Amino acid sequence: MIRAGIVGGTGYTGVELLRLLLPHPEVELVAITSRAEAGQRVDEHFPNLRGHCNLSYTAPDPAILGTLDVVFFATPHGVAMDSAPKLLAEGVRIIDLGADFRLPDAEVFAQWYGMAHRAPEVLGEACYGLPEYYRTKISEARLIANPGCYPTAVILGLAPLLAEGLLQEDTLIADCKSGVSGAGRSAKVGLILPETADSVSAYGVGGHRHRPEIEAVLSDISGTPLELQFTPHLMPMIRGIHATLYGRLAQPMSDAALQDLFATRYASEPFVDVLPFGSHPATRSVRGANMCLIAVHQPRPGQVVVLSVIDNLVKGAAGQAIQNMNRLFSLAEDAGLMQIALLP
Amino acid sequence: MIRAGIVGGTGYTGVELLRLLLPHPEVELVAITSRAEAGQRVDEHFPNLRGHCNLSYTAPDPAILGTLDVVFFATPHGVAMDSAPKLLAEGVRIIDLGADFRLPDAEVFAQWYGMAHRAPEVLGEACYGLPEYYRTKISEARLIANPGCYPTAVILGLAPLLAEGLLQEDTLIADCKSGVSGAGRSAKVGLILPETADSVSAYGVGGHRHRPEIEAVLSDISGTPLELQFTPHLMPMIRGIHATLYGRLAQPMSDAALQDLFATRYASEPFVDVLPFGSHPATRSVRGANMCLIAVHQPRPGQVVVLSVIDNLVKGAAGQAIQNMNRLFSLAEDAGLMQIALLP
Amino acid sequence: MIRAGIVGGTGYTGVELLRLLLPHPEVELVAITSRAEAGQRVDEHFPNLRGHCNLSYTAPDPAILGTLDVVFFATPHGVAMDSAPKLLAEGVRIIDLGADFRLPDAEVFAQWYGMAHRAPEVLGEACYGLPEYYRTKISEARLIANPGCYPTAVILGLAPLLAEGLLQEDTLIADCKSGVSGAGRSAKVGLILPETADSVSAYGVGGHRHRPEIEAVLSDISGTPLELQFTPHLMPMIRGIHATLYGRLAQPMSDAALQDLFATRYASEPFVDVLPFGSHPATRSVRGANMCLIAVHQPRPGQVVVLSVIDNLVKGAAGQAIQNMNRLFSLAEDAGLMQIALLP
Amino acid sequence: MIRAGIVGGTGYTGVELLRLLLPHPEVELVAITSRAEAGQRVDEHFPNLRGHCNLSYTAPDPAILGTLDVVFFATPHGVAMDSAPKLLAEGVRIIDLGADFRLPDAEVFAQWYGMAHRAPEVLGEACYGLPEYYRTKISEARLIANPGCYPTAVILGLAPLLAEGLLQEDTLIADCKSGVSGAGRSAKVGLILPETADSVSAYGVGGHRHRPEIEAVLSDISGTPLELQFTPHLMPMIRGIHATLYGRLAQPMSDAALQDLFATRYASEPFVDVLPFGSHPATRSVRGANMCLIAVHQPRPGQVVVLSVIDNLVKGAAGQAIQNMNRLFSLAEDAGLMQIALLP
Repeated sequence: MIRAGIVGGTGYTGVELLRLLLPHPEVELVAITSRAEAGQRVDEHFPNLRGHCNLSYTAPDPAILGTLDVVFFATPHGVAMDSAPKLLAEGVRIIDLGADFRLPDAEVFAQWYGMAHRAPEVLGEACYGLPEYYRTKISEARLIANPGCYPTAVILGLAPLLAEGLLQEDTLIADCKSGVSGAGRSAKVGLILPETADSVSAYGVGGHRHRPEIEAVLSDISGTPLELQFTPHLMPMIRGIHATLYGRLAQPMSDAALQDLFATRYASEPFVDVLPFGSHPATRSVRGANMCLIAVHQPRPGQVVVLSVIDNLVKGAAGQAIQNMNRLFSLAEDAGLMQIALLP
Repeated sequence: MIRAGIVGGTGYTGVELLRLLLPHPEVELVAITSRAEAGQRVDEHFPNLRGHCNLSYTAPDPAILGTLDVVFFATPHGVAMDSAPKLLAEGVRIIDLGADFRLPDAEVFAQWYGMAHRAPEVLGEACYGLPEYYRTKISEARLIANPGCYPTAVILGLAPLLAEGLLQEDTLIADCKSGVSGAGRSAKVGLILPETADSVSAYGVGGHRHRPEIEAVLSDISGTPLELQFTPHLMPMIRGIHATLYGRLAQPMSDAALQDLFATRYASEPFVDVLPFGSHPATRSVRGANMCLIAVHQPRPGQVVVLSVIDNLVKGAAGQAIQNMNRLFSLAEDAGLMQIALLP
Repeated sequence: MIRAGIVGGTGYTGVELLRLLLPHPEVELVAITSRAEAGQRVDEHFPNLRGHCNLSYTAPDPAILGTLDVVFFATPHGVAMDSAPKLLAEGVRIIDLGADFRLPDAEVFAQWYGMAHRAPEVLGEACYGLPEYYRTKISEARLIANPGCYPTAVILGLAPLLAEGLLQEDTLIADCKSGVSGAGRSAKVGLILPETADSVSAYGVGGHRHRPEIEAVLSDISGTPLELQFTPHLMPMIRGIHATLYGRLAQPMSDAALQDLFATRYASEPFVDVLPFGSHPATRSVRGANMCLIAVHQPRPGQVVVLSVIDNLVKGAAGQAIQNMNRLFSLAEDAGLMQIALLP
Repeated sequence: MIRAGIVGGTGYTGVELLRLLLPHPEVELVAITSRAEAGQRVDEHFPNLRGHCNLSYTAPDPAILGTLDVVFFATPHGVAMDSAPKLLAEGVRIIDLGADFRLPDAEVFAQWYGMAHRAPEVLGEACYGLPEYYRTKISEARLIANPGCYPTAVILGLAPLLAEGLLQEDTLIADCKSGVSGAGRSAKVGLILPETADSVSAYGVGGHRHRPEIEAVLSDISGTPLELQFTPHLMPMIRGIHATLYGRLAQPMSDAALQDLFATRYASEPFVDVLPFGSHPATRSVRGANMCLIAVHQPRPGQVVVLSVIDNLVKGAAGQAIQNMNRLFSLAEDAGLMQIALLP
């Protein structure tokens, strides 16, 4: 059994890790930490866990964390970087669901996150945890930067085309729609139901932290520096990301060739599912499931539209983290991750 | 023109007062105060007011407020009571949308609101601002305690029966459902959309501040001390209160007699509308309107169920406050209040 | 492996049965029928099942159904009764998620469902499938009447008190709130989002088909004929039932005694969870889980309020059906039913 | 007083016309027709109109309609075209909220709407009812084609740039998000709350009827044939359209110059409001109001993003229709249209 811990277990990625890890056949969850809630039972905080979880929150204790096989950081940026070097030195593997190790360049991190990177010495060995593109590297890594929710949906949707150099580089647009849980479990007026229900708005149009992350990864996959117009929107719903991705073909392709490209690329992927050409996936079709649904369109010759949907808390966070853990420990990649989406 | 001011204009009752007062034909809105937002334009805070409101928030200034005809307090409890005596002495009429003057007994206030009443000398002259039952007194008052949202829906639904002594006194139950805006525009984790959407729960079942208010008014109307089981629930919606009211008849009545009682009682009321017997009003039918819809049922002989719906921010707060203002200044009671509900 | 079939698999109870049966370790799902969709792949109809279900809908074929171990009817009332006698004669066990066998009296059925009962000869042997109260009988039955969603929540909440004769018989009220999926997957204007979102209304206050079902079962459990005021409400949410149950104690009880009664009664039940006294369960805490959360209150001496929440599609339909199946075939009662609720 | 009628008054544009026309100071609403509901009171169908509307639905009667000053068609496509020629001949002005006269080319109409145009003889004189671009022509017209909801939001957002030839012609993308009321008040499974709430999906990506409408108008305004990638999405909300519009500048422009272009263009428009550069309008800021909020962004030099939000039932339908009526009859353009949006 893999002995696992969670640092920062009171947010939405924390409770989602618990939902998926507690019944995982190969994992023993040993500790879950929260300074604010130390001593409180986890299932008092999250009643959905009653009967499934006997743990109480503890203050983070390096002596205990240092004995574990793997620690998940479900913390805001700036936390994991302070603990990572020591834990790595003690042989603990780390999966950071925050942003500390997603950007390979410490300067870029500082620019977008407003703080100097405090663990640059391990930043270089961090592996971007998107198994569909970095599977082998993940298996050999000690430190996983679990991708952001938007980047997961966008990269999975655009990469097949960009990896083959099939898109004009200056035409990439990602118009993304996210449920409110993507903003975290935090006490902000702007997130309360009367402010967010029955309404839609964009945010961060001028620049959002996930843009440099997406651009870095897509540039890496395509082998050429890429820029993307990234527009996030807040949706009046709990979970789900819908990425509507636009590009122009560098040369003509038939619909069939486009579909074949995606179908072939993801044929053996357990958690990417390419729908028939011209489909319209709904976020509810992946609610609670570690799955990315992709559909390709070519409304006019040369104009490609890719639709990519995930559950931001599963394939966009906790589910993908467990997928990475499975690889780190040479388990079946889908171990503990075969939940069927909750529909309706 | 009535020169009016609003103290505490950054919450939901504040913006709703603005929506209704700005186009009111007899009102000049002179000042709106907020310590936190002083200097900021109101329409930056509430973009729906762009083009309709040129005011900026100011810090509350007694010198200015003292020159007004009427001041609305859209503040948490404990604020109006500190300003009321001085303003009243200066001839300003006060309509408090908070709870400071709703409970006639300062001891009961202290018990339920956790603070001593700091203006007991004016508490006695406060008039409960439910025009359907205290119309004459309101016209002569200087200080109006605008009713709570739940009490408005519950009292309007039960009072016709209780005023005639037609219900057994120990069988009163008010099972109430409210939209989240009833909890105010405040930064609380428990109110964010992922916590409140797509879910229903009760709260305060053991005791809620609106219970003593309802009991005091219904006791007054019926002329006998009454107790009520009051159960509020939080609904996954923005606005609206649905009160489902249960009682047992003290003596048999036909359906027709029941219906006639309500229809007659409210026949000349502009803002209470009795639907045909056995109807099922929806809160959306009063969204944005100063209206209470009531329907009466008698599923089994002797068992009465009254359904009463309002928009908690209009008939349950700002609209009713303006209805009271209209009476205070001898205007037509429906002046500025004839908006049609927004459906869908 | 139990060879199972589903008749009528295109509605919400159908897809929920699929979600739970497909990964069930002891079940082989052999057939799923739909006249309208015969020939279509199930996962085209319900994309959440892609990768989990290779079945296509077939027209209902008695020759195939007759060879199965168990058939679930997820059909409107009036369908199961036409097939049940023959299938029972062939040794097939039947679990009807519809209403055909819930009311023990064919006359009462005719009165509430507007049709004569066409299988009165097997009605007598139908067992009401609420394991918490009819566990032994279920194990020995051939024909299970799976309870309605409202009845499940109401009976589990009131039965502990009524079984002991602790409530005054004429004071029972069940004020119930249901998500829209409870109305089925049907093309009705009254169910479309612009009619149901951001609004609350009651329906069937004068009488609803679940009332005689609840009354029959509670009368059976208490050993005395009982009447209940039952008021269903439509909530702007997808799933979930919140039952707010009112009664008056026949004799004084302490809060501790009340709590102890419920805690003891359900101590060994895998799918009923009694929260600490005075709790307020939310429907989201059971979203997707086969669980009933119960909390007890006594706001004033003698006045009991019980809160009971379920997911109407799981403990209120498909999950309970599988719980019944598990008993029918002597499996662990929780086999395939340990999903953790999806929160947020 | 203008004597007005509505043909087809049982849908959402119908009830919204009623909400706005009933209190309109210059309009007498004489007739509202519905074959299906003839004889029923309108306020039984739409309870929000109780106390505001004494009309009953009538079957459409040419003898009555022919005596009116103006008739609004709130009907599906294919209805207005059968009545228009005769009514026009009788001197009645027509405002069609459907699609019959929006496309200037009868062939294109037939291609997208699947029926031959049956009134080509009057199609040529139909005026596209977007006052911001066709104000003078509207004043002189007899037959107004009221724009579609998406086209209104998209055209108002893109036209200032296109009218000046400032965008590269092959880069136009409109990624649009609409509330479910945009799909009409119709009994379709795909629109019921459990199918549409808490989920987002695109539809019609390969081609939608509003695309040729937008392209025709933008081509007219810009003086050059334009193509647009138009992607509509269904949002889990009742009302509102959010258009996210992408284009590339033909030549560099500063942020200030961009903002100035929009601010100047719409400076005197009563119903288009240009927010400060870089703003993020929310659809709830225009809920119930005849208003289009626009904000301009330039995330990277040359890449323009325009955000344009409307209420699909007001500025996107009924409100705009009344704005057109006001012009037809030389009233103040904002007569009856100054409602403040309902927020929250």
